[in-house]
Amino acid sequence: MSDCIFCKIITGEISSLKVYENEDVLAILDIAPVNHGHTLIFPKKHFANLEEIPKEDLAELMKVVKKIGKAMKYGMGKHGYNIQVNNDSVAGQVIPHLHFHVIPRSEDDGLELWPQGKYEGEEEIEDVLKMIKRRL
Amino acid sequence: MSDCIFCKIITGEISSLKVYENEDVLAILDIAPVNHGHTLIFPKKHFANLEEIPKEDLAELMKVVKKIGKAMKYGMGKHGYNIQVNNDSVAGQVIPHLHFHVIPRSEDDGLELWPQGKYEGEEEIEDVLKMIKRRL
Repeated sequence: MSDCIFCKIITGEISSLKVYENEDVLAILDIAPVNHGHTLIFPKKHFANLEEIPKEDLAELMKVVKKIGKAMKYGMGKHGYNIQVNNDSVAGQVIPHLHFHVIPRSEDDGLELWPQGKYEGEEEIEDVLKMIKRRL
Repeated sequence: MSDCIFCKIITGEISSLKVYENEDVLAILDIAPVNHGHTLIFPKKHFANLEEIPKEDLAELMKVVKKIGKAMKYGMGKHGYNIQVNNDSVAGQVIPHLHFHVIPRSEDDGLELWPQGKYEGEEEIEDVLKMIKRRL
């Protein structure tokens, strides 16, 4: 897409810090990393979000997510990483070209997962299950 | 694995709030949801983390992640969702059986992404790139 930053990075019109590239997928360092090594992985074809990407392209993308996670863990000597997709602007997606974040983690990095809540009872649970299942 | 909670949920030894199931994958409601509808999606075969799962199984798993995200968004009337994998205990993984979190989002839910940092200069960036690339 002509006005998409990631599409411009793919064509080379905008420079990037390339971690890995193959025919279908590009992986670059996030220049504003949550932790050093934080990598963004995206398909070369433009898909706005997870709903748009066909399963075959998603499978190719995930091969690279897996590859980068492993290389980050063992190359950087980390004990693990988080994978995140912020799908749509309400979820924090800034660039509307589907991308996976891979963030290396250390014991002392101070990052905390979102707090967990609860359901008030069976009825609330049943309502939620019904809502999701009606579109499956 | 005999002592794995998710393996016991798959066999039915432990009950769960089932959202979706197919031959390879199970999706259940998280009973301590970040937001209502928070769903956990995992392969029926036991893999501790992303490094362990073969790409074919990962492709099957991602088909369901995509399916659940869409059903959650349109079934619950949400504008988006986050996908998270906490890969290894340092990243917040509690149950060592690979699972994807899908968390529906609303404008007013108060959840915030982790703060972004920076690199101090070219050298720091080059060091990080070298570390990751040496294990690619």
